[in-house]
Amino acid sequence: MSNNKKMNEAVTSRDADFAQWYTDLCLKAELMDYSDVKGFIIYRPYGYAIWENIQSHLDRNLKETNHQNVYMPLVIPESLFQKEKDHVAGFAPETAMITTTGVEDLAERLIVRPTSETLFCTHYNKIINSYRDLPKLYNQWCSVVRWEKTTRPFLRGKEFLWQEGHTAHATEVEARKETLDILQIYKDLGKDLLAIPFVTGKKTEKEKFAGAIDTYSIEALMHDGQALQSGTTHYFGQNFAKAFDITFQDEKNQQQFVHQTSWGVSTRLIGAVIMVHGDDEGLVLPPYVAPTQVVIIPIQSKKEEVKAASSHLFTELKKAGYRVQLDDTDKSAGWKFSEYEMKGVPVRIEIGPRDLERNEVTLVTRHDRTKHVMKVEDVLKEMPIILRNMHDTMYDRALKHVEANTYQAKNYDEFKAYIIKGGYVAMSISGEEAEIQIKKDTSATARVIPFDQTPITDICPVTHKKATQTVWFARAY
Amino acid sequence: MSNNKKMNEAVTSRDADFAQWYTDLCLKAELMDYSDVKGFIIYRPYGYAIWENIQSHLDRNLKETNHQNVYMPLVIPESLFQKEKDHVAGFAPETAMITTTGVEDLAERLIVRPTSETLFCTHYNKIINSYRDLPKLYNQWCSVVRWEKTTRPFLRGKEFLWQEGHTAHATEVEARKETLDILQIYKDLGKDLLAIPFVTGKKTEKEKFAGAIDTYSIEALMHDGQALQSGTTHYFGQNFAKAFDITFQDEKNQQQFVHQTSWGVSTRLIGAVIMVHGDDEGLVLPPYVAPTQVVIIPIQSKKEEVKAASSHLFTELKKAGYRVQLDDTDKSAGWKFSEYEMKGVPVRIEIGPRDLERNEVTLVTRHDRTKHVMKVEDVLKEMPIILRNMHDTMYDRALKHVEANTYQAKNYDEFKAYIIKGGYVAMSISGEEAEIQIKKDTSATARVIPFDQTPITDICPVTHKKATQTVWFARAY
Repeated sequence: MSNNKKMNEAVTSRDADFAQWYTDLCLKAELMDYSDVKGFIIYRPYGYAIWENIQSHLDRNLKETNHQNVYMPLVIPESLFQKEKDHVAGFAPETAMITTTGVEDLAERLIVRPTSETLFCTHYNKIINSYRDLPKLYNQWCSVVRWEKTTRPFLRGKEFLWQEGHTAHATEVEARKETLDILQIYKDLGKDLLAIPFVTGKKTEKEKFAGAIDTYSIEALMHDGQALQSGTTHYFGQNFAKAFDITFQDEKNQQQFVHQTSWGVSTRLIGAVIMVHGDDEGLVLPPYVAPTQVVIIPIQSKKEEVKAASSHLFTELKKAGYRVQLDDTDKSAGWKFSEYEMKGVPVRIEIGPRDLERNEVTLVTRHDRTKHVMKVEDVLKEMPIILRNMHDTMYDRALKHVEANTYQAKNYDEFKAYIIKGGYVAMSISGEEAEIQIKKDTSATARVIPFDQTPITDICPVTHKKATQTVWFARAY
Repeated sequence: MSNNKKMNEAVTSRDADFAQWYTDLCLKAELMDYSDVKGFIIYRPYGYAIWENIQSHLDRNLKETNHQNVYMPLVIPESLFQKEKDHVAGFAPETAMITTTGVEDLAERLIVRPTSETLFCTHYNKIINSYRDLPKLYNQWCSVVRWEKTTRPFLRGKEFLWQEGHTAHATEVEARKETLDILQIYKDLGKDLLAIPFVTGKKTEKEKFAGAIDTYSIEALMHDGQALQSGTTHYFGQNFAKAFDITFQDEKNQQQFVHQTSWGVSTRLIGAVIMVHGDDEGLVLPPYVAPTQVVIIPIQSKKEEVKAASSHLFTELKKAGYRVQLDDTDKSAGWKFSEYEMKGVPVRIEIGPRDLERNEVTLVTRHDRTKHVMKVEDVLKEMPIILRNMHDTMYDRALKHVEANTYQAKNYDEFKAYIIKGGYVAMSISGEEAEIQIKKDTSATARVIPFDQTPITDICPVTHKKATQTVWFARAY
């Protein structure tokens, strides 16, 4: 359709080497760059703008459901971090510690927050006294640091950006409802903004968060058949409340411990968008999250009528609220086509003198690389329909990919064969013993215990004991 | 006007002890709380919402002027930080250093960013090659850490939230224009959002930023007559470009160093809002930055007609885009009046059965504590006018405070007398020698060299040498 040679040279084919394709795209589409410290990346304007669109969508949803933003300190005293024993065991090996100002050593080591449960709990201990103070529905946007050994842009970093919600409730019922309500908000974020059909469910005991009673997760299936945990919500029960003594006087004047939750999504979602939708020509960005939704490329841009028409359309689209860019630089049209395909801009509008004679422009949609010739005056009217269709098509395509790559295994050989093909494999297992064996044999991990618990077999194909739960497995990032 | 006793007990009088009044308000209005680590504060929902409103206003202005947001790493390798010699000398004593993961010591100490010039410069070195790559107009929203000894909420912390802009340009003219354009954007932020008349000008050599050629600043005058530096913009010339080797090929194929700027405002602006506008009853928030613009308080809230009218007005105001709150809790009306006065909510609407018989409500404006009785159906129509008048009145009041407390000193005795009264004192001085003497004698510091350089005297009253510049002095936070 267009000359993509120039850009394609830089990007590995998706099916030849998915990992290399991913890294190439992150760099070449100018989403990020590496810094001098391994695992700490630079979010470049195009990558950060995707995150800003995610933030603004989710932040609105959280505020509409009465959540409030706060900001807690960057650092946690080592002694405070150690108060909840499961939590510290889960995080201790991967914490960065501030020990000195260079001039003077600190009296106590300060941990750079890997997550902020301990800070929220300390604050809640101070500000919660009565049932009238509940619920507390707090959220914060920040960066966190975890000393990961193996790092990949957006997927796993020593530092990443995220939101972390921390809530306190009077009852278990209310806190459990919050845990699932947020899971739904995350799932909707996939459906409405990212065009990603998240699979949801509960984590197994082995995979749950350090300190949680129950962890739920949204999982996305990448093009290569590997899963990506894309967000989690946790029900803590009273574990942290007891460790941090967070109590309130209920309506009967009884002292009670609060019930708590926490939940978060991160810049890992950018990785999910790349790996779910991208193709051999580059990124394919869902229209509602794309930093630039429409790029206008004048052909023979020095001709007055081309210049005037391009600039008029640009102004009209901008006024209508679209994120639109006009590229009238002196680079060749072919170069521009490749560049914006690489960057996954949803709609390209080519405006040339011949088309203009017929009062027409050529519009190319990135997700299916299809040309649409249309009257200039129809562009504005058609644009919402084009973007809506594109979003829906991308969502459906991703959903079909999930459906086509989800299997049920009645025996272990079947399971292994499916896992090698890639995708989710559901199997009814006896419990953690089976999970450990499966990971050892196939490197697949339990992704979720789905809400639909229809058994596949009565006996666990791995341990030959009684099956107690149906679990979706996959190899995962 | 209303029973404020309950809340007032908690807050020191503003004129009795301004510092204590300030701290009381920060805590009692629930803007912030202290954490377990000295100098690191918790931004509570009400305080953080003020910051979000500042962010959203300024971010829009920056994007409209073609600035792009990015996110740089939290950490800077010690060796990188030391590349620009003036810069490191300015910051070295106050840096927090990550040295270990608790399990393993790091090969190189990592400085938690006190500011990110060195990171932006390293990135610019990589991505700037040609004049076509310029200008780069980057900004980031983040928190920074400086190991300050004396800390006060919002004014000076070991950690604070800010934006830092870092730009690279082809020419000195363009970079100097950027430095002043941003200064104007900051000044407008004061005029349009914070109702603060910032005084602007250049910093003296002694007071300028570590590594800058010129620093400009916005200064605000607090109620107690002390000044607060509220934001700065820096022209770096080619100092950093040379240290970090940031060059580009110009249109004549010559290698040139870029010209750079940086600039920032921080959560210190929250401190400015408190200390410029607050009074003995508590905060007085300018209407456009206030998290809650209108609070509706039903009197005898169990009566059906009161309940219906309150909820109707709430819905109407919310639909019209106001940040409105309805307090129908069972606390007493008097308690509520004090509470929302303390929190500085611009407009309080009291809806009681007697007023309603006449189809009226009572509206109280916080900045002048004046009652306005008006027809229910007029509230929505009057609201934009009320908020606009309130904003303008608050701005004018603050401007009059600046004008009434700005003096010109023709001799050193006059200067000392004015400084004791509080406010800005302009004096024509010989240079740094005079500045040092003045600080020693009066603890006043040079705030700005104003753009208007009309001399007051030809001879410096301090050194008796030839006066070279007119400088505004004040005691400052």
